[in-house]
Amino acid sequence: MVDVSAKPATSRTGVAHAFVRMKKATVAAVRRLDSPKGDPLEIARIAGISAAKRTSELIPLCHPIALTHVDVRARLCQNGIEIRSQATATGPTGVEMEALVAVATAALTIYDMCKALERGMEITELYLESKTGGQSGEYVSARVKRGRQGRRRK
Amino acid sequence: MVDVSAKPATSRTGVAHAFVRMKKATVAAVRRLDSPKGDPLEIARIAGISAAKRTSELIPLCHPIALTHVDVRARLCQNGIEIRSQATATGPTGVEMEALVAVATAALTIYDMCKALERGMEITELYLESKTGGQSGEYVSARVKRGRQGRRRK
Amino acid sequence: MVDVSAKPATSRTGVAHAFVRMKKATVAAVRRLDSPKGDPLEIARIAGISAAKRTSELIPLCHPIALTHVDVRARLCQNGIEIRSQATATGPTGVEMEALVAVATAALTIYDMCKALERGMEITELYLESKTGGQSGEYVSARVKRGRQGRRRK
Amino acid sequence: MVDVSAKPATSRTGVAHAFVRMKKATVAAVRRLDSPKGDPLEIARIAGISAAKRTSELIPLCHPIALTHVDVRARLCQNGIEIRSQATATGPTGVEMEALVAVATAALTIYDMCKALERGMEITELYLESKTGGQSGEYVSARVKRGRQGRRRK
Amino acid sequence: MVDVSAKPATSRTGVAHAFVRMKKATVAAVRRLDSPKGDPLEIARIAGISAAKRTSELIPLCHPIALTHVDVRARLCQNGIEIRSQATATGPTGVEMEALVAVATAALTIYDMCKALERGMEITELYLESKTGGQSGEYVSARVKRGRQGRRRK
Amino acid sequence: MVDVSAKPATSRTGVAHAFVRMKKATVAAVRRLDSPKGDPLEIARIAGISAAKRTSELIPLCHPIALTHVDVRARLCQNGIEIRSQATATGPTGVEMEALVAVATAALTIYDMCKALERGMEITELYLESKTGGQSGEYVSARVKRGRQGRRRK
Repeated sequence: MVDVSAKPATSRTGVAHAFVRMKKATVAAVRRLDSPKGDPLEIARIAGISAAKRTSELIPLCHPIALTHVDVRARLCQNGIEIRSQATATGPTGVEMEALVAVATAALTIYDMCKALERGMEITELYLESKTGGQSGEYVSARVKRGRQGRRRK
Repeated sequence: MVDVSAKPATSRTGVAHAFVRMKKATVAAVRRLDSPKGDPLEIARIAGISAAKRTSELIPLCHPIALTHVDVRARLCQNGIEIRSQATATGPTGVEMEALVAVATAALTIYDMCKALERGMEITELYLESKTGGQSGEYVSARVKRGRQGRRRK
Repeated sequence: MVDVSAKPATSRTGVAHAFVRMKKATVAAVRRLDSPKGDPLEIARIAGISAAKRTSELIPLCHPIALTHVDVRARLCQNGIEIRSQATATGPTGVEMEALVAVATAALTIYDMCKALERGMEITELYLESKTGGQSGEYVSARVKRGRQGRRRK
Repeated sequence: MVDVSAKPATSRTGVAHAFVRMKKATVAAVRRLDSPKGDPLEIARIAGISAAKRTSELIPLCHPIALTHVDVRARLCQNGIEIRSQATATGPTGVEMEALVAVATAALTIYDMCKALERGMEITELYLESKTGGQSGEYVSARVKRGRQGRRRK
Repeated sequence: MVDVSAKPATSRTGVAHAFVRMKKATVAAVRRLDSPKGDPLEIARIAGISAAKRTSELIPLCHPIALTHVDVRARLCQNGIEIRSQATATGPTGVEMEALVAVATAALTIYDMCKALERGMEITELYLESKTGGQSGEYVSARVKRGRQGRRRK
Repeated sequence: MVDVSAKPATSRTGVAHAFVRMKKATVAAVRRLDSPKGDPLEIARIAGISAAKRTSELIPLCHPIALTHVDVRARLCQNGIEIRSQATATGPTGVEMEALVAVATAALTIYDMCKALERGMEITELYLESKTGGQSGEYVSARVKRGRQGRRRK
């Protein structure tokens, strides 16, 4: 584990993105809330938030950090579900992993909720959109800079 | 949670796939074991196995299941790291989610280990390759059938 | 921990009940989904299911048991929210504690979601409604037998 | 999850209460330490403390918070066991849920320890007695103000 | 993780031992229950049982197994506290690690409870006493065979 | 749990030690990486770090503390494997238990990885080497002062 003992506690944020690609028929079924298990988007949101809080248990060399905020939003698109998370904390280390764990777990939860409808769904475009705080300062992903996402899915 | 009380316990397997796309320079650094944190591939393997065992804690509507085997393999490619997992159990419900949680967590761990080198890495192609057992029987993903993966990365 | 090694694995169910008593104004706010945090009933349901799966971590002398089914339902009443859970498993020991942990955690989650509206909410009538299976056989609580619940809240 | 990033870290306390109602014969058995599993009151105390530390794992939208103190006390009464907890931390959010999780888990543990004696025990009067700290300041429950508890059970 | 999918489920037991060596004055203080934190022996027992149930979370390549029994006993000796555990399960793999995790965690808990009295305590003689079941059959440690323990501490 | 609410947050470190005694043949097998499960030293290191982060879940009266650093090193000796850990945090309470949990879990993991080779391995000399910070200030174990370890194993 990287030693962050001497680093000052600063305000940190991380924003992450994932996409669960599925057939239009599956998207339509989610929209109609056909799943017998409950609303996939809401359950995915809760699963993502809960997992973010346990990031240091899942990722061996992650430091424990007390998140002051984490949120996950899932949005139905034409060919799948787009998931975005935001994590915030004040501490000596960043919250990128927390944001990434949130979207990954939310995406896996959507897979679980919908797998009876379509087993061939695929999780893709799982990346860090941006982060602020810390020594390395602000980061914005090339994808976000190019604004490619917006154009592709409407 | 779907009621599986009346389902017979049968032998189940699940095989999953993920890819962490990174720059060639990052792949080269991983190959030289430049990471100050340890060997990313081995740590990712352990993280994936450990997470698979906790799948029912992460995915709200997953049943707890006693895995009899889970393994994760990570392989350096030209433009990233390919991860594959295999999960096995005997029970009334499948182990697809266990296999998927394994590759997702291994991929996130690789991100964590290498993020100081390249923050723009992206997790992609996270999907179920195949499964056996249960009422729905065998499943092989279209990707595996087409054998596209092999052609694209050598 | 009681030694259940010699007990045969039989089918077990447990049904539990809890009530979160709150002001009519709070019930009305929940009904309008005024909470900024999400739908309290759905989040409580997920929290209850998730906690039931971890019962043996919370209750020191509980045996681990692989639940084949657990569900939680929350229902708005005039003066609060009634929660009921059902847990099922096949094993050498019962699932009463799993059902009770589910309703308790769902009730606490409702408290958490609504505490900004009313801090004086109270969790009450948390009890086992019934169980089946095992050496001691079927149990039905005196409350259920008397059918008092139905009369009191409509 | 409510965003508490901008809130100052202040000293917080929470005091919670629960009651496990049981027959006099069951109380007498607990008093004689007849349980083959150990001392129910001490085990309930440890279970309550341990659970309080994991509150943010159980309650989906609770923030993780580093408790600086938590204690649980269980007291034999004529018709049951009264449980009280106190939780303390310095942070941007309160510790009410930690105190409530502590008494709830302690009460469930008592149920588990004594259920062979009486399955009809009931957990009731689970509420927040008081809290201090934070924007909303001090809170004292109406029950505590009225001092009703003291009169009813001696 | 070793693949145990093809192994038959058989009855398994494991017995483990640990010793916390401390000064006579510390033993005497424990005997008088001077610790402000509670009874170290009882709390260590509960901690050991609880940890045994989570062995597969702690030991990366351990299979999850549903313990049907685990117990921990701590005994005051002249120069320390002797801890013994017994774990039992029916499954395709052994419970040695569960028994060892139980005594290790109980010993660490005793250290935690008594460290204000003596920081120089040492955990030693942590080993598997015996196991039964499985392909490799019965095992009895050389130490147990020699009966050395009994002679040394009375 | 001891109330540390009024204690100031200071920088704390803890260093712990454990030894897994095994036959020379077992040491040689570990050196040749003969284990079918992976590299025992690296997996033990990861297990120790991961467990240290969960100390407050394992040890009932330990406070949760956000480690800023933890590392574990395992070294092959003539007659076993020596493990040392270092833990660091800034907080109102020490990190001795975190350091001890790290070496204990690493030692148990080595046992698990090598038990097919030798079931009679023994964990011994598990103690706190030193600590800094807090009211009681610096502590160095008598063993370290005497420098006995260095002389005995080379």
